[in-house]
Amino acid sequence: MESSPLIKQLVDALRVLPGVGNKSATRMAYQMLDRNRAGGRRLADALVAAMDGVRDCEICRTFSDNATCALCRDPRRDPALLCVVETPTDVQAVEQTGGYRGRYFVLRGHLSPLDGIGPEQVGLPQLIQRLKQGEVSELILATNPTVEGDATAHYIRDLCESLPLVISRIAHGVPLGGELEFVDGGTLAHSFAGRRPFK
Amino acid sequence: MESSPLIKQLVDALRVLPGVGNKSATRMAYQMLDRNRAGGRRLADALVAAMDGVRDCEICRTFSDNATCALCRDPRRDPALLCVVETPTDVQAVEQTGGYRGRYFVLRGHLSPLDGIGPEQVGLPQLIQRLKQGEVSELILATNPTVEGDATAHYIRDLCESLPLVISRIAHGVPLGGELEFVDGGTLAHSFAGRRPFK
Repeated sequence: MESSPLIKQLVDALRVLPGVGNKSATRMAYQMLDRNRAGGRRLADALVAAMDGVRDCEICRTFSDNATCALCRDPRRDPALLCVVETPTDVQAVEQTGGYRGRYFVLRGHLSPLDGIGPEQVGLPQLIQRLKQGEVSELILATNPTVEGDATAHYIRDLCESLPLVISRIAHGVPLGGELEFVDGGTLAHSFAGRRPFK
Repeated sequence: MESSPLIKQLVDALRVLPGVGNKSATRMAYQMLDRNRAGGRRLADALVAAMDGVRDCEICRTFSDNATCALCRDPRRDPALLCVVETPTDVQAVEQTGGYRGRYFVLRGHLSPLDGIGPEQVGLPQLIQRLKQGEVSELILATNPTVEGDATAHYIRDLCESLPLVISRIAHGVPLGGELEFVDGGTLAHSFAGRRPFK
């Protein structure tokens, strides 16, 4: 028996967060009520601000506070390199490596005809239009190495065949620090097929 | 580089939740923005409602939406049994066992003189006043089996010595399903000292 409907409602609402079940949500609710109500109110404000204010960048389709995102507006980024990823989180992941200085295009998913997600839903007309402007000289396909991600990469490659572009796919293989013994067969096969001259 | 200050603010605010670090907070923010903005807004509403609406029950000091909580108002609960716990979460934990039909008193912490938490801060004057009304015949001390919880239990026992009450402490020992081999020495010693006739 929950002593407070307001707490019950908060616990239920917290379960919208990924990885948060009933037990964690209960702990979160009680701890905020007990120790940090100001923090709880700040979280509510930040949620409203983000849910209402964050939109899609008109150029690269990633999350942005403005019509175009900071990455697209940054004049120091190389406009000749364009990296295609599936989600805004992937942009963050690549940015955190600090090694990529080009620009992005975010599909916001992958091709999945059975779910009604075709070329238009992942913004391919917009991508082709951008490529046709001629500023991009290399297109890096960094969709996930899953069946859907691979299919999407192949589809985009076929679509761009007639354009004067270098098209590359990021390397897949044994992760750094990984041990061959614990890597799955598919990855290992990939890493053999994709072997490079060792200088 | 975070492409959106609003997302950064949301990620920072999410870290108020216990057990949520930068990485989980980022995942939560992006997933909500991508898939469930309605859920995010609902969470904001629930947070505001709970942070502003939940107060302390005037009788037992647990969390409540009203002046007195549902447990204190429930006429089916036995007023002769009073269980003293440290936190509202402890009330929920005992309630979930379904085996206790008495009432509660919530200290909202434990005695900790070094932190300035004395008898008044944990509501002992209020507890004594309630016990003096004579309705309670057994006082069950269910503070945590920690140094502070034990000290608090001892302090309450001494305080109530002159009152016509049975005072009990919940049993501490090897948890059900536990194995002696993996139980710490203190717990095991406790469970030997607290052994009971086996009928």
